[in-house]
Amino acid sequence: MCGTEQDTACVSKCTFSTEATGEKRSLSSDAIINLDHGDPTMLETYWRKMGDKCTVVISGYQSLSYFANTKNICWFLEPQLEEEVKRLHRVVGNAAVDDYYMVVGTGSTQLLQAALFALSPPDGSEPVSVVSAAPYYSCYPEVTDFLRSGLYKWAGDANAFDKDGPYIEFVTSPNNPDGTIREAIVKGYGGGKLVHDLAYYWPQYTPITSCAHHDIMLFTFSKCTGHAGSRIGWALVKEKEVARRMIKFMEVSTIGVSKESQIRAAKILGVISDSCLPVPPPDSINFFKFSQNLMVQRWDELREVVGHSEIFSLPEYPQDYCLFTGKFTETHPAFAWLKCNKDIEDLGKFLKGHKVLARSGRRFGSDPKYVRVSMVSKEEEFKLFLERLLAIQAPTNGNLK
Amino acid sequence: MCGTEQDTACVSKCTFSTEATGEKRSLSSDAIINLDHGDPTMLETYWRKMGDKCTVVISGYQSLSYFANTKNICWFLEPQLEEEVKRLHRVVGNAAVDDYYMVVGTGSTQLLQAALFALSPPDGSEPVSVVSAAPYYSCYPEVTDFLRSGLYKWAGDANAFDKDGPYIEFVTSPNNPDGTIREAIVKGYGGGKLVHDLAYYWPQYTPITSCAHHDIMLFTFSKCTGHAGSRIGWALVKEKEVARRMIKFMEVSTIGVSKESQIRAAKILGVISDSCLPVPPPDSINFFKFSQNLMVQRWDELREVVGHSEIFSLPEYPQDYCLFTGKFTETHPAFAWLKCNKDIEDLGKFLKGHKVLARSGRRFGSDPKYVRVSMVSKEEEFKLFLERLLAIQAPTNGNLK
Repeated sequence: MCGTEQDTACVSKCTFSTEATGEKRSLSSDAIINLDHGDPTMLETYWRKMGDKCTVVISGYQSLSYFANTKNICWFLEPQLEEEVKRLHRVVGNAAVDDYYMVVGTGSTQLLQAALFALSPPDGSEPVSVVSAAPYYSCYPEVTDFLRSGLYKWAGDANAFDKDGPYIEFVTSPNNPDGTIREAIVKGYGGGKLVHDLAYYWPQYTPITSCAHHDIMLFTFSKCTGHAGSRIGWALVKEKEVARRMIKFMEVSTIGVSKESQIRAAKILGVISDSCLPVPPPDSINFFKFSQNLMVQRWDELREVVGHSEIFSLPEYPQDYCLFTGKFTETHPAFAWLKCNKDIEDLGKFLKGHKVLARSGRRFGSDPKYVRVSMVSKEEEFKLFLERLLAIQAPTNGNLK
Repeated sequence: MCGTEQDTACVSKCTFSTEATGEKRSLSSDAIINLDHGDPTMLETYWRKMGDKCTVVISGYQSLSYFANTKNICWFLEPQLEEEVKRLHRVVGNAAVDDYYMVVGTGSTQLLQAALFALSPPDGSEPVSVVSAAPYYSCYPEVTDFLRSGLYKWAGDANAFDKDGPYIEFVTSPNNPDGTIREAIVKGYGGGKLVHDLAYYWPQYTPITSCAHHDIMLFTFSKCTGHAGSRIGWALVKEKEVARRMIKFMEVSTIGVSKESQIRAAKILGVISDSCLPVPPPDSINFFKFSQNLMVQRWDELREVVGHSEIFSLPEYPQDYCLFTGKFTETHPAFAWLKCNKDIEDLGKFLKGHKVLARSGRRFGSDPKYVRVSMVSKEEEFKLFLERLLAIQAPTNGNLK
């Protein structure tokens, strides 16, 4: 999670609902609410409504082999997953798939590393610089540097990068943590390679304004459908040689990707595409309408609470025409990039005192007056978060309650 | 697979049976037989016999979260997998589980890397040396060096290692590729850390002579049950701090491990343990008896073919008392470490000319007069391999046919 172990340990103090049985248990009123991670459990209600449509049945004799399709250069990619991923991108219109190679990963986190491996000059005398514009996703520095690779090295904020020579820039759009729509920053005069992290480029989060067709585009099942536990991500890659190097990384790193997760992801993505048909199957609910409504509702509620406060503020997002919904909408990010306007130097620490865990702006190469708060938690946690935010009043006698 | 891409591409020339439907298609008589990888598809017949016993059903709303058990330091480990892994080790008696921390990985390959990360001094001025006694598993050098880590570095054959200072030794027993029973080699006077790779320490491959209780022990679902496609491995770790660092690696590398694979692995391991009960469930077949019989049969067949040849030879293994079966048995490794005794300098190349792909001894830090041949392929491939071996006659007029 690129979070601290302390944060992870804190989650255990919360009481979650038991997903498998559907049994609901309430959070105690003094429970610690962990919104540090973007654990996308918000959509459990949707998947329960879908009933058996997404149920997968796997027999004991299936998928014994390492191989899924020896005719594909990505030999561990299940054909039905490739088919359903491409179908969904065509339905949504958010990314080009024709003439792209698809590489599946154990979440997009592994594919970030595969991309770094693939794009680093193999014979470079020094590691290639890896940058992203601040505030950048907090995992980028950690994932880049945790093994002290001689191939690549984190070089910080892309805005401040002025080194000559090769570099790799992560372009995250909509951005994690602040939801902005982004383009590449560094003017590298041909020496740079771009990795577009499009994890949140889906209609529930942001208007689809064009069909992306970058060199390397990363997506993740967890942010698209909410199935974080499956650890499925995919890359769409223009150049065969880059795809081949990414596949090599996957081969050495984990000898491919769970077949069970791929089979299930294929089924679930298929159900989503079906739900968007002009005449959807009986009892189907349009996935993107449902999830977009939820995001709009949560953002409305959060903006109302923040509007009553003199302490906090949120970014504003412009409206844009969404090619998928055919409507003007604004971005409703999976995270709120919350800022404190008063004399609170460390908002993360302050909120922790109110039993809300959020990720400090410092972790994103930004100011600790900001925190990133998950907007995709379970309803109960989100409500409790709003209540606590509302209870934090403006300063009285110089102190915040 | 730590194999060449060329090898992977070659597999596509073979025609495999279609597992999902049970439909069988025959290999053409001139098909390339790929026994380079240890793709453990041999046991498909067993899993078909088990019928619905191992079938898993997963609903669309299950396992959305990154978390599996926030009360466990390995927060992404499914409780039922931990339970079934520990139960199976108790049934077989091959490894101690009490007072061990379990870490789940995307196959044991990922856990090898997690162990290197956990055991490397974080503030070391130079990378720690990683060694294993030749012939060593061909993935070790590749996995250690592919990212040119500043934390650890491959230092080759443990027999030749005489450097002062810290090191990490992989001890593989039974060994891959040659099936020997091994202990640590380097006498490091306290500066060394050991990682015991016990992937093949199961009764179908070797007598269980004691309950292993090393500091770090690695196992993999693929070599235990044949489910390589699931990418599930586990580590049993004595020290909490080492386990915590391995978990940190898993967190940064892939944010945990597929929940679907874990759920399925738990079910399948449970079926195996049940099959070993004094009174097993109806229609159950003792898994280890079945798989051991298959290994014995294949080794008998291979030894017979090799016995007729003046060209090839195989290692001999001593008999030992197996605490699990209560019988004297010998090792029947998952790979044959085949040697050519004639004037063939490169056995891998020679066999390739006969349309059999096997991994050259060179890849294991050994002599190219050896190859490693998978003994756990599908029956049809194994038979064709034997036929081809039999057809290779002793030299006539100085040439091998």
